[in-house]
Amino acid sequence: MSSLSSQLQKTVEPQYIRAPKGLQNVIVDQTRISGVDPKGETTIYRGYLIEDLARALTFEEAAFLFLYGHLPSEEEVKEFSQKLNRERVVPEEVYEIFEKMPRTTHPMAILRTGISFLGTLDEKADDLSKENLYETAIKLIAKTATIAANGYRITRGMEPVKPDPSLPHALDSLRMIIGREPSKLEARAFESSLILYMDHGFNASTFTVRVIASTLSDMYSAVTGGVGALKGPLHGGANEKAMYMLLEIGSKEKARQYILDKLARKEKIMGFGHRVYKVKDPRVDVAKEYLRKMAKTNPEAQKYLELCEEIEKIMWEQKKLPANIDFYTAPLYYLMGIPIEMYTPIFAMARVVGWTSHYIEQLENNKIIRPKEEYVGPVGLKLPPEKQPKEDP
Amino acid sequence: MSSLSSQLQKTVEPQYIRAPKGLQNVIVDQTRISGVDPKGETTIYRGYLIEDLARALTFEEAAFLFLYGHLPSEEEVKEFSQKLNRERVVPEEVYEIFEKMPRTTHPMAILRTGISFLGTLDEKADDLSKENLYETAIKLIAKTATIAANGYRITRGMEPVKPDPSLPHALDSLRMIIGREPSKLEARAFESSLILYMDHGFNASTFTVRVIASTLSDMYSAVTGGVGALKGPLHGGANEKAMYMLLEIGSKEKARQYILDKLARKEKIMGFGHRVYKVKDPRVDVAKEYLRKMAKTNPEAQKYLELCEEIEKIMWEQKKLPANIDFYTAPLYYLMGIPIEMYTPIFAMARVVGWTSHYIEQLENNKIIRPKEEYVGPVGLKLPPEKQPKEDP
Repeated sequence: MSSLSSQLQKTVEPQYIRAPKGLQNVIVDQTRISGVDPKGETTIYRGYLIEDLARALTFEEAAFLFLYGHLPSEEEVKEFSQKLNRERVVPEEVYEIFEKMPRTTHPMAILRTGISFLGTLDEKADDLSKENLYETAIKLIAKTATIAANGYRITRGMEPVKPDPSLPHALDSLRMIIGREPSKLEARAFESSLILYMDHGFNASTFTVRVIASTLSDMYSAVTGGVGALKGPLHGGANEKAMYMLLEIGSKEKARQYILDKLARKEKIMGFGHRVYKVKDPRVDVAKEYLRKMAKTNPEAQKYLELCEEIEKIMWEQKKLPANIDFYTAPLYYLMGIPIEMYTPIFAMARVVGWTSHYIEQLENNKIIRPKEEYVGPVGLKLPPEKQPKEDP
Repeated sequence: MSSLSSQLQKTVEPQYIRAPKGLQNVIVDQTRISGVDPKGETTIYRGYLIEDLARALTFEEAAFLFLYGHLPSEEEVKEFSQKLNRERVVPEEVYEIFEKMPRTTHPMAILRTGISFLGTLDEKADDLSKENLYETAIKLIAKTATIAANGYRITRGMEPVKPDPSLPHALDSLRMIIGREPSKLEARAFESSLILYMDHGFNASTFTVRVIASTLSDMYSAVTGGVGALKGPLHGGANEKAMYMLLEIGSKEKARQYILDKLARKEKIMGFGHRVYKVKDPRVDVAKEYLRKMAKTNPEAQKYLELCEEIEKIMWEQKKLPANIDFYTAPLYYLMGIPIEMYTPIFAMARVVGWTSHYIEQLENNKIIRPKEEYVGPVGLKLPPEKQPKEDP
């Protein structure tokens, strides 16, 4: 057997490829969902520039575009919206488990558990037929908003604000988070930010979703994993940190000294720089437009606009780094009265559109994602004499 | 700005590497935890041959070896076992959420949710200090057994069997699953199988754990994602399917016709073949030894031993494929009276040792795992005239 063994080993010896750590710049698969545009200056969703979509579409239209690959007709968006609005309702059991969680539970741990629990209640969770995958995606997109908003409210001792299926998705989501009817401008700015956050190539959470999907596990498992990855401070959380910094600086006049001091200590300035956008993040313009609109009637918004633009100026002058999207969603959300801890769950409420679309795409042409390790530990160790095979018990 | 833009784009243009689909044969990182031995014939855990460990160590000794990288002293294993045994107890709230789940909930969806929920109750979940990571790993290893066993029992309408901290881990885990005190031989065979399942390089669930860890998310998030990946039938579940096949064949005499028919229809025979072991899975010998020991006093075990060996003979003769570990844990678990649906959760009860060890290793030298997509969808699409930027609301 041993000669056959070595013979077979030789014939099947695979050619290993060594990838850079973190899979940086390693193309792992193709996608038709989103990517960097050919000029490398912006992101495209299904062929359209992200900034065009964030200015013009509703949440429902953008989510439909992600899932189905084309803009919806009037009829299609009507049907899709009705489903989505209906599906925001979650079973009472979901609220009950939030009541068992401590007041300090991390909002992303709440969301992760809520989505996983939701999966146990869906008797069609393991039906991977095309038709059911689209239904499940709609359920997940709709219910993630309700779980994020009310999981937070309940653990923090507030009354839940149940979804209102007569309202559009973004407006109702914001209403559940802040506990009041938002203004039209707030709702539209929020909706636009959700579109900006919907997807971004094979980021760590989307890649997690695709790895889990590749085992043919169900969509709840994959999205639960995605939430877990987005929870990590190297992935989600940048807009939260940017807001804490803005609050710490306080006013435009104090910005220069604060930034220069921080740079002198070689500390990272949150909300600046991007792996892809070296000169300008196209998403910033859109978010800034909404901040400007708010500033027309709200002096607090004017204050943040001036503060942010001052920091942008200093950072470009000092480091040639442009602001990224997180730097401008932070004050927008703050001005809406959204608790800072909720910024990453809001990211998830948007990104779930990308996650579910990537899950479906992964299954359309699937191969299990199973890389190779390089073992660099010891070899040939022997157990000490006292640790020999157990006797027959 | 545009000339600067194109200039910067040029200087930073990354060199992309195209990896084969599924990252097959792509070395993504180094590990000192487990790998294929230099001859390519077996797996090594921390330098030792897997079959030596599965014959000689207790669950506690093997888990310690995984986490700390060396065999424990007598004192160390005593302390470790005490912690592990104490930590099998789970808060009452965990049992309460199982009561809300439908009777048909997938056992891996129960486990995924139980572990995620456990994370919300651990106020130190986000403490990533080295010391706390080891504490969290012990909690997760211990409690996964209790959650897997009692989540199943409760949803299926049985009384939970609470853990007994005076018993060793493997024996107590099996006791909770089958609801009776196992024999010494059963407990030892079960323990040995857990060691065989503890780790296996960068399989899909372990890779999921490492991707989530790489965002610096917490260990509960990572393990929850690992459970979600193992749930997929392309990853876990092979031993369940092997058992259904053995039951379908029923007796040694019917094996040849059954297998030949299945091969003629080009159907996959579960429990055969392995990506690494082309001639022999070294883990099979160990599992078979325990089946032989059972067969000495149990005619049912003798029947399965003969049936399995007959199928092995036919498969080698017909396809030159050796049996893999799942083909022999299936009858072992069946003879212990373990419900077939529980085979994958048992896999998780073992693999959680690998997952938590890989989480800790990933954080020791971390870089976010963030590959690149190749966008192959349409480009340059324009929104129709009726979809132009929204007016100021």
